[in-house]
Amino acid sequence: MEYFYLDNAATTMMHQDAINEATGFLNADFFNPSAVYDKAVEVKRKIDEARGVILSLLGADDGRLIFTGSATEANNMVIFSNKNLKNKKFLFGAGEHPSVMECAKELKRQGADVEFVPLDKNGQVDTLAFEKMLDSSVCFVSIQHVSNETGAINPIKKLVKMARRVNKNVLFHSDGVQAFMKLDFSVADLDVDYYTISAHKIGGPKGVGALYVKKGAKILPLVFGGGQESGTRSGTENVFNIVGFMAAAKIMDRDRAKNEQKLSAMRSELLCELKKNNIDYILHGEGMPNIMSVSLSRSVRGETLLHALEKRGVYVSTGSACSSNKNFNATLEAMGISSDEILTSIRISLSPYMEFDAQKIAKIIKEELTKLEGKNYGKMSSN
Amino acid sequence: MEYFYLDNAATTMMHQDAINEATGFLNADFFNPSAVYDKAVEVKRKIDEARGVILSLLGADDGRLIFTGSATEANNMVIFSNKNLKNKKFLFGAGEHPSVMECAKELKRQGADVEFVPLDKNGQVDTLAFEKMLDSSVCFVSIQHVSNETGAINPIKKLVKMARRVNKNVLFHSDGVQAFMKLDFSVADLDVDYYTISAHKIGGPKGVGALYVKKGAKILPLVFGGGQESGTRSGTENVFNIVGFMAAAKIMDRDRAKNEQKLSAMRSELLCELKKNNIDYILHGEGMPNIMSVSLSRSVRGETLLHALEKRGVYVSTGSACSSNKNFNATLEAMGISSDEILTSIRISLSPYMEFDAQKIAKIIKEELTKLEGKNYGKMSSN
Repeated sequence: MEYFYLDNAATTMMHQDAINEATGFLNADFFNPSAVYDKAVEVKRKIDEARGVILSLLGADDGRLIFTGSATEANNMVIFSNKNLKNKKFLFGAGEHPSVMECAKELKRQGADVEFVPLDKNGQVDTLAFEKMLDSSVCFVSIQHVSNETGAINPIKKLVKMARRVNKNVLFHSDGVQAFMKLDFSVADLDVDYYTISAHKIGGPKGVGALYVKKGAKILPLVFGGGQESGTRSGTENVFNIVGFMAAAKIMDRDRAKNEQKLSAMRSELLCELKKNNIDYILHGEGMPNIMSVSLSRSVRGETLLHALEKRGVYVSTGSACSSNKNFNATLEAMGISSDEILTSIRISLSPYMEFDAQKIAKIIKEELTKLEGKNYGKMSSN
Repeated sequence: MEYFYLDNAATTMMHQDAINEATGFLNADFFNPSAVYDKAVEVKRKIDEARGVILSLLGADDGRLIFTGSATEANNMVIFSNKNLKNKKFLFGAGEHPSVMECAKELKRQGADVEFVPLDKNGQVDTLAFEKMLDSSVCFVSIQHVSNETGAINPIKKLVKMARRVNKNVLFHSDGVQAFMKLDFSVADLDVDYYTISAHKIGGPKGVGALYVKKGAKILPLVFGGGQESGTRSGTENVFNIVGFMAAAKIMDRDRAKNEQKLSAMRSELLCELKKNNIDYILHGEGMPNIMSVSLSRSVRGETLLHALEKRGVYVSTGSACSSNKNFNATLEAMGISSDEILTSIRISLSPYMEFDAQKIAKIIKEELTKLEGKNYGKMSSN
């Protein structure tokens, strides 16, 4: 069945060229990169090539890249590496991904002074509130570059400057999973100390992330053992995944300008078709063209709509896959969106590489909404 | 060039059938298993199928399996989950893999009472010494099932019984990375609380391990986030790797009897050919047929021999890839092997699936040893 996959912020299909480039490391070049003979050393060299390519695509002018088993692991590494900054304050964006948010909560349980920076209506961190929260005790800040829920873009460079003005030794981390290879930036220009990226959001494999660490910034291992990744992340390197990550990043780099144009056009076209079908949508926040948090109805729950659309081959989400089971959207709540609008919201996230037909999609949405709005089933209790 | 890969304890080639079975999860079935629509739920189901198959191959009659990014991560999870057992003693085998040993050292740095159980000449844990070390304060024991250095098999069932006799609440972990699908056992019969396995030692992909946790045994997350793996290991599931792990385990299960026979024959044949070539070898420890720690010369360093053999297309190691860069073999040292014999030792580890020709291999070894023994180059300083 033809289908339209509109959940690319959760994960997306691996580029066939990236699969092809990496597959050899499963069989012909399967050697353990920690071994010392020539064939293993060649594999190690390939890992270091990937490290160099990705550092360069990140626009790093110093520092290092640590490959991890996921962006989640990278976020955990950064935060727990700095947990012993005693008598200090930790600031986190109120709309962070669970992989940051749950670490923040764990820090708090361990007794740290943890505060959350509120979001504004657009989904960005509220810079005025941030300014007020900054004082010389703030030692660590973690604010995502692009919201996985709304696509809102945080002005990281500006936030870093604000933080450094108050405490020049502050450590600034940004989770860039939804920004890397989609937004034009360099970590050198942002001036962050740490930056997290993931392969499977850019057409690479699941099961590999990476952490950029600025020269001099502290990083401690979360996992101890054979001392791979210069002692910071033990465990036999996942060569297929690391090479696949590089290959996907190179494809995204090659296609960047084209993708940006295409995604903007796709977004406009979809919103236009929704209007044409008299769907009076409300967008929650805005920023990147590829991610939309949107309420398409005043009465039909997002979850109900999701399952109706699924039967027609249209796949959307009610928020990040990592929190979709929890029936709650912390980001939208932090933006001050009413609970009715949160319950009716869905997330639509686009990929320039997947099948897309705005007319068909809008028509299916209209048909399903009409059916659901005609029934009591799926209606909001307050309506 | 034809080559002989004799370092299969470090890693081995992925089975082509396992690659074929898993590849679809990179493209056609790329969906995020944490999403809630049908296509994602099917992927989630596949992960649970893999979990069931592997639990069954482990011979578990209760308990659960947690997929991790590596066996190293699984070992870290177990050990650090139990680090807060205050005023208690932790026992570790003296020949554990670095992924256990480095955690033990970290526990010690954090102030825990950590002791190491000595090894005997065969490479097994010294049961008499173990018995003496056991007292009611021993709360946690970690002893590997099969040594990655010597192939020595520890009598885990007996050790568990000994430990439980002294403290029925002791938690017993075994790192079974070199045993799983190679040795006939069940975790139910061993009566362990935790058991670690890895995919890439059995022809599965690198970058996935798993931890068996007996019903009721405590396990805490090392990584916080979206709550995957029932909250114990956050991060988007590496579906390709998990399915590849299952597929490899099924192949190994199908071939088990044949592999055991073949490996025993390969070992005998190689040792016989070494003798025929007048190579007066010394085996260090013994157990599994597929792993041999062996000194082939009284004067040529293992490392020197390794690099000479590498040029002839014969790949061996001087110990586990995870510690081979450290020019030191803690396992052999714990066995009381002299430093001269440690320095001359190499590890040969076989696979029934790789090219093998005992005659050719022995001939190449003989030729290289003759060359090296004729030179000063590579000789032991004490000779």
